[in-house]
Amino acid sequence: MNTNSKGTETRAASVRTTSFDVAALAGVSQSAVSRAFTPGSSIKETTRQKILDAARKLNYVPNSIASSLTTNRSNMVAIILGSLENPFYVHVLHAFSQDLQRKGRQTLTFTLGEGMGTDEAILRVLQYQVDAVILTSAQLSTRMINLCHDRGIPVILFNRYIPHSGAYGVRCDNVGGGRMIADAFLAAGAASFMMITGDPNGTTSQDRVRGFVERLLEAGVRRDAILDYPGRSSYDGGAAAIDMHAETGKPFPDAVFGIADIMAMGAMDTLRIRYGKRIPEDIMVAGFDGIPESARPTYQLTTVSQPMAQMVAETIELLHLDDAIKPLDLIQDHPLPGEMIWGATVPRR
Amino acid sequence: MNTNSKGTETRAASVRTTSFDVAALAGVSQSAVSRAFTPGSSIKETTRQKILDAARKLNYVPNSIASSLTTNRSNMVAIILGSLENPFYVHVLHAFSQDLQRKGRQTLTFTLGEGMGTDEAILRVLQYQVDAVILTSAQLSTRMINLCHDRGIPVILFNRYIPHSGAYGVRCDNVGGGRMIADAFLAAGAASFMMITGDPNGTTSQDRVRGFVERLLEAGVRRDAILDYPGRSSYDGGAAAIDMHAETGKPFPDAVFGIADIMAMGAMDTLRIRYGKRIPEDIMVAGFDGIPESARPTYQLTTVSQPMAQMVAETIELLHLDDAIKPLDLIQDHPLPGEMIWGATVPRR
Repeated sequence: MNTNSKGTETRAASVRTTSFDVAALAGVSQSAVSRAFTPGSSIKETTRQKILDAARKLNYVPNSIASSLTTNRSNMVAIILGSLENPFYVHVLHAFSQDLQRKGRQTLTFTLGEGMGTDEAILRVLQYQVDAVILTSAQLSTRMINLCHDRGIPVILFNRYIPHSGAYGVRCDNVGGGRMIADAFLAAGAASFMMITGDPNGTTSQDRVRGFVERLLEAGVRRDAILDYPGRSSYDGGAAAIDMHAETGKPFPDAVFGIADIMAMGAMDTLRIRYGKRIPEDIMVAGFDGIPESARPTYQLTTVSQPMAQMVAETIELLHLDDAIKPLDLIQDHPLPGEMIWGATVPRR
Repeated sequence: MNTNSKGTETRAASVRTTSFDVAALAGVSQSAVSRAFTPGSSIKETTRQKILDAARKLNYVPNSIASSLTTNRSNMVAIILGSLENPFYVHVLHAFSQDLQRKGRQTLTFTLGEGMGTDEAILRVLQYQVDAVILTSAQLSTRMINLCHDRGIPVILFNRYIPHSGAYGVRCDNVGGGRMIADAFLAAGAASFMMITGDPNGTTSQDRVRGFVERLLEAGVRRDAILDYPGRSSYDGGAAAIDMHAETGKPFPDAVFGIADIMAMGAMDTLRIRYGKRIPEDIMVAGFDGIPESARPTYQLTTVSQPMAQMVAETIELLHLDDAIKPLDLIQDHPLPGEMIWGATVPRR
């Protein structure tokens, strides 16, 4: 059971300093020590600093796990991520992690993949008694949402929604953004179109496609002048979509809409390098998301930027982390408008 | 205290099904139910499936938090990340998350930034009673390492080491890789050089620089023919380093070594677009890491690839997650060799 601090050790817990030891050294009450380590508690900063100094001297660390049994709060928020191949979700993860840490919470990360679907992830999430679940992936059964809600764990969908599920979330106006891109192409004189789409089960891709196609049809474009190819929400998928079209032997359309920036970037590189196309002279390209990568000088992609910081802040607000009593209204659904970013890949007017 | 599954709810825990209920329905012992939910336990797959079916019917979810108090295992592994601006660490996070999930563990993510240094992160890590800590960032005080070791929590450094700290880890042979790049440049006839460096406090950047410079000096290159500029381990930092050199008014060197691929990518785009340089005709560029992004057709970067999958697997093996009794040897230090990847940015021979 002995441990040493150099090389080898066993996993047994050693005897621990208690909050009473820290209180004695700092000259405060035990409850003040407890407050000093509870996110959002009211305590004077000088007192908190005195307690932290004493804790440091005594190597004291509060046991969040034990206290979560009495408070029913683990101070962990689960974030369930699909692929990280789309940098948008890397930026999302980073923003949530930083914002939650600032609020004294930690991020328990679940990445979907073989052997871990969303429902499996939610079952695991429940085992860890997280305070809330942020879900950025497409699928989630209504049964699983109910299982979380029955335990008082809010599920917030980030940048998607599940119709008739009782769970909505914070998202960008994807339909409206799709229409903006259609308008930009039309104003630039495009008459034939190609979409590179993402997850066919995800509302994000569906809504962007819907807005784009609706607007084109309204403007008199024929449905058969709008091609679509799957792009798997990745750079490689965007590149492969261009190859797929080239293999049909048909000419390239006037304009390509990558449903996510990362797919538009893959398409641009392939159009230029493999097919010798100039952008926008020979073919226009636009994306959606506004990731920093798409603004790099090689791309300067025309795109619709999602208000990510605002979406992250609103999601965290919806969680009511500091207010466990307040009932959560989880049937919110208020898409935030995206912003048109004019790069160099679509001629302006 | 009531909850409903539709819209609003309070955070109180509802009455829960116990493992005994599940055992009764599945016709097995309670200890079999417990094993079915314990990662690494021996249990027949058909029995496990029967128990999971029963658990699903009863909406049963084991409480990992409560059981961690008796087992001293939380089944969580902390991963402490610096910036996610370098895609290498995004790939690392994804690989760890997937591998740990497969072993029934979850990843508790800490991203460093304002208000969260490594020591602060370690203090928080201890509060969550994680089973182990994987650290991919540069700084960590010896005191904090000892604090973890005293509690039996192994700290594994990923792709770095802290000399004389008692904590080493799994890493690539960065000195050897730096030498490989120097050799490639020398063989291609380069006589003047520029390095774009990463975190000055990190052994990763230091070692790559050391190997590169040592090899050049051995070959008779004068130290003043090797310039260096900071690149902040990011695309933008790599781009800014090229601008910094241009502002000196001196000619560009024959070869640029981006200490990480992402910096080499930023340098390449800036050299081409802002300064009209052809690569490798006017100036050679090489990187380090072997991230998939650097193999895209616009870059085809010559680089040293880290054996990431092997490094992740060895790190997880070092944690001895399924073998709590076995003493950990944390003073391992065995750099794995990188592999030279010939792209199109350095002429070969």
